[in-house]
Amino acid sequence: MTENSIGLVETKYITFAEAPQQLLLECGQGLGPITLAYETYGELNDSKSNAILIVHALTGDAHAAGFHEGDNKPGWWDNLIGPYKAFDINKYFIICSNVLGGCQGSTGPASINPITKKPYALEFPLITIGDMVNAQKYLIDSLGIDKLLCVAGGSMGGMQVLQWVASYPERIKSAIPIATSLKHSPQQIAFGEVGRQAVMADPVWNKGDYYETGQPERGLAVARMMGHITYMSDQSMEEKFSRKLKDQNYSFSFKSDFEVEGYLRYRGDEFVKRFDANSYLYLTKAIDYFDLSGGKLIPSGQTIDTKFLVIAFKSDWLYPTYQSQDIVRQLKMRHIDTTYCEIKSTYGHDAFLLEVEEETHLIKHFLNKRVYEEN
Amino acid sequence: MTENSIGLVETKYITFAEAPQQLLLECGQGLGPITLAYETYGELNDSKSNAILIVHALTGDAHAAGFHEGDNKPGWWDNLIGPYKAFDINKYFIICSNVLGGCQGSTGPASINPITKKPYALEFPLITIGDMVNAQKYLIDSLGIDKLLCVAGGSMGGMQVLQWVASYPERIKSAIPIATSLKHSPQQIAFGEVGRQAVMADPVWNKGDYYETGQPERGLAVARMMGHITYMSDQSMEEKFSRKLKDQNYSFSFKSDFEVEGYLRYRGDEFVKRFDANSYLYLTKAIDYFDLSGGKLIPSGQTIDTKFLVIAFKSDWLYPTYQSQDIVRQLKMRHIDTTYCEIKSTYGHDAFLLEVEEETHLIKHFLNKRVYEEN
Repeated sequence: MTENSIGLVETKYITFAEAPQQLLLECGQGLGPITLAYETYGELNDSKSNAILIVHALTGDAHAAGFHEGDNKPGWWDNLIGPYKAFDINKYFIICSNVLGGCQGSTGPASINPITKKPYALEFPLITIGDMVNAQKYLIDSLGIDKLLCVAGGSMGGMQVLQWVASYPERIKSAIPIATSLKHSPQQIAFGEVGRQAVMADPVWNKGDYYETGQPERGLAVARMMGHITYMSDQSMEEKFSRKLKDQNYSFSFKSDFEVEGYLRYRGDEFVKRFDANSYLYLTKAIDYFDLSGGKLIPSGQTIDTKFLVIAFKSDWLYPTYQSQDIVRQLKMRHIDTTYCEIKSTYGHDAFLLEVEEETHLIKHFLNKRVYEEN
Repeated sequence: MTENSIGLVETKYITFAEAPQQLLLECGQGLGPITLAYETYGELNDSKSNAILIVHALTGDAHAAGFHEGDNKPGWWDNLIGPYKAFDINKYFIICSNVLGGCQGSTGPASINPITKKPYALEFPLITIGDMVNAQKYLIDSLGIDKLLCVAGGSMGGMQVLQWVASYPERIKSAIPIATSLKHSPQQIAFGEVGRQAVMADPVWNKGDYYETGQPERGLAVARMMGHITYMSDQSMEEKFSRKLKDQNYSFSFKSDFEVEGYLRYRGDEFVKRFDANSYLYLTKAIDYFDLSGGKLIPSGQTIDTKFLVIAFKSDWLYPTYQSQDIVRQLKMRHIDTTYCEIKSTYGHDAFLLEVEEETHLIKHFLNKRVYEEN
């Protein structure tokens, strides 16, 4: 257990949108029933005014903090969530929801289609960030929370933050989008598409119909390896690996000679054990479709009182700082209370998981002084 | 035909290193016979002092300029090679050599192994940039050229330029390494490795033994798609594609919705028609192994009188300008006559093929005023 850990936690599940009350998706199809996996940390106060929603990145899950029974590693944002941490559970009630379309307890392409009694596979409808947020709204409603004190998340999580504001501004007191964008650029779409092609090129993928035979591990690992390059920076790779060899000399073969090669292969292999290939396709497509640019974040004529803390990282070349600056520009043009901070990190996009000290400082101050005390 | 085109050209072939006079490779193995495909443009003067060697990038070939019979498109550097162009064939005798390990007329893994009478496939030894240059030296020797007026090339071509200087400084009057590096960084190695894994993940690859059954098109296309992202810049992709859709609306399927997706798929599909998957593995490994850092470019105690023009492009994030600056630093420390130019281009790494006007200006001036007139 780390210092100020929440300790043992358990994932919970909520199921809703049973037919005929299905969730109407942006693609026009209805979907239901829908299950979302989520975790909560801390206590909801009597006025239900201290709830913070944490939303996760592409391959994240509901387990943001604390330990599951038997785990060696805590949740993915454990160093930001806990007693006296950035998201202080002595003050706040924290909810972390897995996304619709995911594969870690929530309804997605690997789930059983109630009509066919078999996994949906590609029968699962394409979902959007908007659909993810609409599903999360069921969860927030079911907890009796009228207004969230804050929604916070990085990367695809940041898109959900922005989408919450766009879809339900009256439900959000403050928002912390981190290392994210109003829309995917063609380069970001291109990386998404190559990842998808890597999966779909694997014959084991079998047009998505692989649940009885095992998943397309080779293709999915390639996609993940490429992803990992984009999550790090040139500099952080240099610091971590440089040209260090695994053995003393070049092998003069196609074995992995360099430590960075071994690392990528390892990360690829680990990933396929925990993540469903079809979910990877659906979620990358959802972020490619995401587009709240050109005034769509806050439709004209609408006024909102959500306060923003926008965080970006200088070495993040996957979600470059100019994209966060675009968010800030949109907000400032609408006279919305916005704080922008660019953190000098060398970690690249992964910085949103790693720059704990700076993030803690910024988030704690923002929540305590700007949001909570005015509550 | 474009203006000042060389017109029709033909690829020539030279074969050497027949057993027992095989070429000793850096891996310790001998290789022979070796064929290199090459083209020449212009006339070698009587003193054989006007020869310029052009060396190509990863998937380039010997066809740098002019047209082959029936071709609609000229060679890959046609806008820099021809009468009155940067490499002016009225003055210079231009040689462009395909690389050892390649698949466009030169000996590589797809060639017939004289012992087994079948394609080498993975029996082909791992080759290095040093081996490529040693093979090119046979060609230059056979043409009776003692000293090259210049060696020029971009990307992997730039590595061959640097290697020529490191291996045979007395044979090189001037050198133009463009958009290249003294060594591959871990990020560059990582992209290489993911490309290789994409190929090797394709079961059609069959451990390299596919010459009778057809090549691993899906895997190789994925590798090439990823490569294309790294050859462009975020900005050039924005200018070329933005978020333009192929149809009016999102398909809500895994078809390619965005123009950038269609473009990448097209480039991937085109590539597999012209390039051998095993060659791709061998050449990417050769550039990953390349390392002339730390004084290896010019061993201490050695003095050389080669003049340098080093060119880099601001938006090139695959071979960032700091890597060209490292080359310049190494040269300046050894008091070598070096001109460095950073071109403000938005094209990314592809700029070395596209920034014709700037390159023409720089190269013409360098060759005419700094090299040729002092001849």
